[in-house]
Amino acid sequence: MYKEDYPSQLLENAVNAIGSLPGVGTRSALRLALHLLRQPAENVHHFTKAIDDLRDNVCWCSECRMISDAPICSICDDNSRNHKQICIVESVQDVMSIEKTGQYHGVYHVLGGIISPINGIGPSDLTIQALKDRLDKAKADCGGTVLSDIEIILALPGDVEGETTAFYLYRQLSPYGVQVTAIARGLGFGDGLQYADSLTLGRSIAGRQPFKAQ
Amino acid sequence: MYKEDYPSQLLENAVNAIGSLPGVGTRSALRLALHLLRQPAENVHHFTKAIDDLRDNVCWCSECRMISDAPICSICDDNSRNHKQICIVESVQDVMSIEKTGQYHGVYHVLGGIISPINGIGPSDLTIQALKDRLDKAKADCGGTVLSDIEIILALPGDVEGETTAFYLYRQLSPYGVQVTAIARGLGFGDGLQYADSLTLGRSIAGRQPFKAQ
Repeated sequence: MYKEDYPSQLLENAVNAIGSLPGVGTRSALRLALHLLRQPAENVHHFTKAIDDLRDNVCWCSECRMISDAPICSICDDNSRNHKQICIVESVQDVMSIEKTGQYHGVYHVLGGIISPINGIGPSDLTIQALKDRLDKAKADCGGTVLSDIEIILALPGDVEGETTAFYLYRQLSPYGVQVTAIARGLGFGDGLQYADSLTLGRSIAGRQPFKAQ
Repeated sequence: MYKEDYPSQLLENAVNAIGSLPGVGTRSALRLALHLLRQPAENVHHFTKAIDDLRDNVCWCSECRMISDAPICSICDDNSRNHKQICIVESVQDVMSIEKTGQYHGVYHVLGGIISPINGIGPSDLTIQALKDRLDKAKADCGGTVLSDIEIILALPGDVEGETTAFYLYRQLSPYGVQVTAIARGLGFGDGLQYADSLTLGRSIAGRQPFKAQ
């Protein structure tokens, strides 16, 4: 039998590396390693270079903390967007999802996580101070008045942790005099009422809107 | 909206690279890319180096075509193993599976695939010529007689392609005078008879063995 179950130390190293990715088990890692081994060497180098490049050269926007190729991301750098609307999201993926809707023309702020005592993530682990710095700067720019023309849109997950984070942010942002709104909660497009859970349906009724014929 | 849906070209390149792996969709690739981005740079470099090292430095055993760290693999190089038993398998994984049983003490030959006209894989795409060369060499070493003391064990998948390959190999190897055997087909350990398909159960009956009390 092989020492450590692998016929090659190099294979074992690669399987361990690939298997360290979340959601990739040892068997899948072995399959992927052997797949890479069957590819031309230049394809494999292209694969690893793309990952190294991402890790080494990516920027985070100094305004909104979104992933970016430049110190200021293309959204924050876009003057045609409404810089008085700041949408607060948990992650990079959330920004991409909202951008895909084509319905939002403001800017963002990426928290980089969500307050979660169970996972040991507190407010100081998020980019909340950077958000306050943004608002302080806006306040200084407009001469120190309250920021009633700025709308902060909370677009956080609809679970307990998301609600906790929203509540915390609401308390932190109130002194700035900004308007704080939250994205609508309710029945998804195509959902049937009988399949919705009571919390969702309850919120959907409580958050009803004047009907608009389109 | 972002050009091409990605906030960063570097991210897009990495997602495309990771998404080119079999069984990894774009959404998983994005999740993995962002996971790697959160890791320390040295961990990511260790990850990519393990893959580059595998691709660049791995050897294939010149005897059995198994993956190896040396020109001759640790099994072919082991004199305590029976070199008169050669187990023919489809893939590297198959060798690892058989080694894990601890039941086999001969050597191997890895075909590197299976005859499959649908996938355009013919006998010349496999390492069959290398196997014949091994037998020719064995014949020359023992003075040109037939190789009746060599057992070739066909351990190929139990599907049509495996059977086709087994039949092809049987015809190719017969002139050498080697014994050709095949691994037993039948009911798996713990399987109930009523759940087995008729082909498996039929083979299980046809291939019955004298009962041995253990």
